[in-house]
Amino acid sequence: MQIRHFRIHSFAISDPPLRSSFGLHAPLALRTVIELESADGVIGIAETHGGSGPAETLESLRPQVIGQDASQLMASLTALRSQSKYRTALSALEVAALDLVGKTVGLPVHALLGGKVREEVPFSAYAFYKHAWGESKYGEALTPEGLVTQVQELIADYGFGSVKLKAGVLEPDQEIETIRLLRQTLGPTVPLRIDPNCVWSVATSVRVGKALQAELSDGGYLEDPAEGMADMAAVRAGLLAEGIDMPLASNMAVVSFETLAEAHKTDACQVVLGDHHYWGGLRAVAALGRVCETLGVGLSMHSNSHLGVSLMAMAHVAAATPQLSYACDTHYPWQSADEEIVAEGRIPIVGGNVRVSDAPGLGVTLNYDTLARLKERYEASPIRARDDVAEMHQHVDPHWQRRRW
Amino acid sequence: MQIRHFRIHSFAISDPPLRSSFGLHAPLALRTVIELESADGVIGIAETHGGSGPAETLESLRPQVIGQDASQLMASLTALRSQSKYRTALSALEVAALDLVGKTVGLPVHALLGGKVREEVPFSAYAFYKHAWGESKYGEALTPEGLVTQVQELIADYGFGSVKLKAGVLEPDQEIETIRLLRQTLGPTVPLRIDPNCVWSVATSVRVGKALQAELSDGGYLEDPAEGMADMAAVRAGLLAEGIDMPLASNMAVVSFETLAEAHKTDACQVVLGDHHYWGGLRAVAALGRVCETLGVGLSMHSNSHLGVSLMAMAHVAAATPQLSYACDTHYPWQSADEEIVAEGRIPIVGGNVRVSDAPGLGVTLNYDTLARLKERYEASPIRARDDVAEMHQHVDPHWQRRRW
Repeated sequence: MQIRHFRIHSFAISDPPLRSSFGLHAPLALRTVIELESADGVIGIAETHGGSGPAETLESLRPQVIGQDASQLMASLTALRSQSKYRTALSALEVAALDLVGKTVGLPVHALLGGKVREEVPFSAYAFYKHAWGESKYGEALTPEGLVTQVQELIADYGFGSVKLKAGVLEPDQEIETIRLLRQTLGPTVPLRIDPNCVWSVATSVRVGKALQAELSDGGYLEDPAEGMADMAAVRAGLLAEGIDMPLASNMAVVSFETLAEAHKTDACQVVLGDHHYWGGLRAVAALGRVCETLGVGLSMHSNSHLGVSLMAMAHVAAATPQLSYACDTHYPWQSADEEIVAEGRIPIVGGNVRVSDAPGLGVTLNYDTLARLKERYEASPIRARDDVAEMHQHVDPHWQRRRW
Repeated sequence: MQIRHFRIHSFAISDPPLRSSFGLHAPLALRTVIELESADGVIGIAETHGGSGPAETLESLRPQVIGQDASQLMASLTALRSQSKYRTALSALEVAALDLVGKTVGLPVHALLGGKVREEVPFSAYAFYKHAWGESKYGEALTPEGLVTQVQELIADYGFGSVKLKAGVLEPDQEIETIRLLRQTLGPTVPLRIDPNCVWSVATSVRVGKALQAELSDGGYLEDPAEGMADMAAVRAGLLAEGIDMPLASNMAVVSFETLAEAHKTDACQVVLGDHHYWGGLRAVAALGRVCETLGVGLSMHSNSHLGVSLMAMAHVAAATPQLSYACDTHYPWQSADEEIVAEGRIPIVGGNVRVSDAPGLGVTLNYDTLARLKERYEASPIRARDDVAEMHQHVDPHWQRRRW
């Protein structure tokens, strides 16, 4: 399984005008796919963050990748693990190496991770305040009512059994109203989560948590309400002081085993949002399950805009991780079938679940025609890094600034 | 890789009269080897604790083992993980399943665990106060001087670079004297560890730690000095109050992810002695590395009397676990070549290291002639469980009782 070729494909996909506290999604989202090809001609693939930075870091590792045995690649790169600048690149290499090993020996990635404890992996609807333009089938959603309509459509299309609201966009009271309206509309059993990407003060976070105490209970959580470990811990303490044992989830304060250790000391995070794209790969997220079990915290999964390679990688590690205690996040419904780089076609989400593949490796391969088309779009565009603020200035408000509530 | 046959072999090996705080090793030590054979005729093996209890628990799992895909066996048994009575059996099944998968697909177990970060795995000399009888090449060692001679012989034979003293046998002051004599004899760079199997009071533990502050520094540790989590925490606090930041290691208070969590809360343990035989298998110990990294504690490895199958399993997971920060314990030098059940022969320990095998699976297979001979010894003996107290009564002192200092 000696690695002979290492190909890095930077490409761009369409993205609808979704809002977050960081601004506005651009019409093009950037992604990278890598291929590791062995001397036997077997190809392992992985999808990761896009733009010039991730591609350059991956490229810088080429001398350490070519010639390595795929089954020993990550061990040979262990010394780089402690350097955070390599974490995303190492994660992508790990997934591609696992895919290559699995495809070579005929085992699905979930078997290489210890086997699947579930056939189907639950995902959560990921609802966004959204503008009307663009070609998405989902329309404008800039009010509580609009957002509820969007969620109803997402549930009708994919059968999601839980819902996450990307918040930090409207006034907190309007977002409270959105969650309350979701609860009224969806009934008492659908877990709800809300994520303002840490633009709330400690006081606002506690106020929102208190206001939504009932709505976010029973499998829901309050995600990254405030910025930084100290404020997250203060939110937790503030809620507990009010008698509210509401779990705080995080993928912004807690981004690594090191920061999880720090969060644990101050009780700043009760649900870790793992992400194999930057935690070190699929084995790292599987091990994160053991860490969460030991620390007594829950495990859910974070997502960026992505296609089917990432979705199936998430499904494999989720299937192999008994400690996963929440439905995973996914942006997948916001991407379109004609831009799916997976040759097997768009991955079905049915009843809110992705069925993990039992085919060798990840169970997906590349559609090189689609990939070529998306690479051309990347080349034709000047954009090399995400800038949601610039999009806000151009399309919504030339004076927009990220604000705190 | 469907499992068609599941064989459980209970056997007995010779053991020298080694002393510990529990009493005296019997002339026969009990072990179990299991085989999982696939429909393709590939055989995966594992070695574990011996006697009737472990064999019966393994036997009780037969209906859940036969017919399973080896690469999914552990996932299919996940529900049993939380029941401690199954932990040893599950651990053995995991190792045998990994060996079977590796031998089927042509990958060494270390590659299935993520790859080897070291070619050679360091082990520590395991020195015991010992009586003269029996057929061991090592003679009586019931004084500090005798113990030092034994260690010199062990180092001459195996090249060990660190030394563990099994203590709790002589008066604490004599054991302090033993460590001091070891330090004088071996020079300043050989890490030393001492393990009285928790027969010391908190006060004695702190006193010994204080007396051996210099001798146990630089890579050494104080292992399980006192009994139970609360007393371990009290020893740690007592040492810190004296300004002594000596790591406490444990495989008696800390025996699982749950107890590690408890230990972390009270700072009762700074070095975890993992053991794939009861932590859940090789993947569990590899994940334990991530847990230890997150908690900021060290990782070493515990051993019981064992043969080459266990030794090579330990070497595979140690090779694949970057967080292993200490040489592993092993009783291997106390067993003899003519009782090695590994067909490839006794595994060399050179320069204190075991070279991990790159052959498929564990890289070892069974010598069925030797195994048959050792099974006959088991059948011919009435002993079905270890009883070190009975051995003391019979051979040393009819009134012996486990005492506390």
